[in-house]
Amino acid sequence: MSDISFSDWMRQQQQRAESALERSLPAAGLQPGRLHEAMRYTTLGGGKRVRPLLAYAAGALTGAPSERLDAAACALECIHVYSLVHDDMPCMDDDALRRGKPTVHVQYDEATALLVGDALQTLAFDLLSAPGLFADPARQLRAVHTLARASGSRGMAGGQAIDLASVGLALTREELEVMHLHKTGALIRAAVLLGALAGEIDEPSLQALDHYARAIGLLFQVVDDILDTTADTATLGKTAGKDAAHDKPTYVSILGLSESRLLASELAAQAEASLQELGERAQRLRELAHYIVSRQF
Amino acid sequence: MSDISFSDWMRQQQQRAESALERSLPAAGLQPGRLHEAMRYTTLGGGKRVRPLLAYAAGALTGAPSERLDAAACALECIHVYSLVHDDMPCMDDDALRRGKPTVHVQYDEATALLVGDALQTLAFDLLSAPGLFADPARQLRAVHTLARASGSRGMAGGQAIDLASVGLALTREELEVMHLHKTGALIRAAVLLGALAGEIDEPSLQALDHYARAIGLLFQVVDDILDTTADTATLGKTAGKDAAHDKPTYVSILGLSESRLLASELAAQAEASLQELGERAQRLRELAHYIVSRQF
Repeated sequence: MSDISFSDWMRQQQQRAESALERSLPAAGLQPGRLHEAMRYTTLGGGKRVRPLLAYAAGALTGAPSERLDAAACALECIHVYSLVHDDMPCMDDDALRRGKPTVHVQYDEATALLVGDALQTLAFDLLSAPGLFADPARQLRAVHTLARASGSRGMAGGQAIDLASVGLALTREELEVMHLHKTGALIRAAVLLGALAGEIDEPSLQALDHYARAIGLLFQVVDDILDTTADTATLGKTAGKDAAHDKPTYVSILGLSESRLLASELAAQAEASLQELGERAQRLRELAHYIVSRQF
Repeated sequence: MSDISFSDWMRQQQQRAESALERSLPAAGLQPGRLHEAMRYTTLGGGKRVRPLLAYAAGALTGAPSERLDAAACALECIHVYSLVHDDMPCMDDDALRRGKPTVHVQYDEATALLVGDALQTLAFDLLSAPGLFADPARQLRAVHTLARASGSRGMAGGQAIDLASVGLALTREELEVMHLHKTGALIRAAVLLGALAGEIDEPSLQALDHYARAIGLLFQVVDDILDTTADTATLGKTAGKDAAHDKPTYVSILGLSESRLLASELAAQAEASLQELGERAQRLRELAHYIVSRQF
């Protein structure tokens, strides 16, 4: 593990994700130009790159080669961005602002937003299935399959559907957890697993990382719900208070603000405990947990 | 090659695709139930299953194992159906009828249609990347990558974008061809290649099949354009005359009806010629070419 500070490391890895995405997205000059331009517009130049950061941190732990990790990071971010583009559309959350910029259907049009999301999802699987990317094709297939499982109807897309069906309902804390384990948690877990699978790791360590990732995934959502209540639109770079405005159940609406903060601390502690046996190599993953929880305070 | 008639073979393979899809789609009882029910509603019980038929015919030629071919057929059909669901949405073609049934956004709602398409695309990659499906994981990765390339911004989704950008424009015959080679042709080619890759095949034979598939892909579109002009809604199971209504360029609008029919015959002959060296084993692929062209006369 290098001895640069966490914030320097984070900036470095965010830039690394940015250049990898820049190289992986089709050039705007390539036909169909408007589609490729819109894919670049929404993917580049913004975002916290949480999923790439998790993949890079897990990959550093397992000695994953750089090119392979970059492909995993880009695939994860493409899935994440596609879900944001579709989620922002008028038939879903109808949001005009994302990462401080007009959303794709506002900047372009709805049909383009639909196709941008569709094509970004495909690009994720294109990048991760590139022949020869992994030395071991069976392990690469496992990575592709992990990403697919995390993204589909029993993962992220399923979480969106549960979310839609929950509007206006009084969910229990358990039901809310199920929704988030799908909607955000599945892809966060995939990020850690893909980073780890890009290098060498034994199954018990992979299990430990998976426990870490499960806690981090919920933590991320709890903090998001807290920020949606307490931060303003300028700070968030997206419309604040929109969950309440859409009558969506959140941790804050179910548990209250101080109980939600307590839950965040507990999840951070769980994440930390999962990393115990992985020792010093897991330092960046520990720091990422702290970073996620510190967004609220 | 079995000696049952082509129409019996076709019915058999369509039923085979139907049962494979039935098994591969998540049960409607599985959470989120409404999403899974809508995925099944739009995928099952209809469709000509052209892409599965092509995969089965190519797979029969290369001795592909049954389970592997079924997965390839399902993956192809999931991609195809996802594209129809999104294409029918109000921001695209705004169509109310598909395969003789109300479209997903009509039967359910727009948000569900969006998620159904998203989740069907993911399911395609989930099915095709299942660990152990192919004896050779490198070949399986090649199949996954072939499907991703065919479906994304430089394939099918790109074709949709070119299509959108072409509304109201006077395209040349060459520009129309580029659009269709992306929009329909790419996935038709992938169908033949995936079927072949599921078995054993040398590169020259794969090339021959690719030439066949390219011709078939355009043929399919030319015939579709002819039918859109000449058939009625009841026969099509979808709204007839909609391309003209949307001011979309078609082979008929550019070449006229009789020239389009001539082109269809030429493409059928090209497809036939590509199969020459493959001999008797390619009989079902030949019959499929005849079947596609005969839809118009």
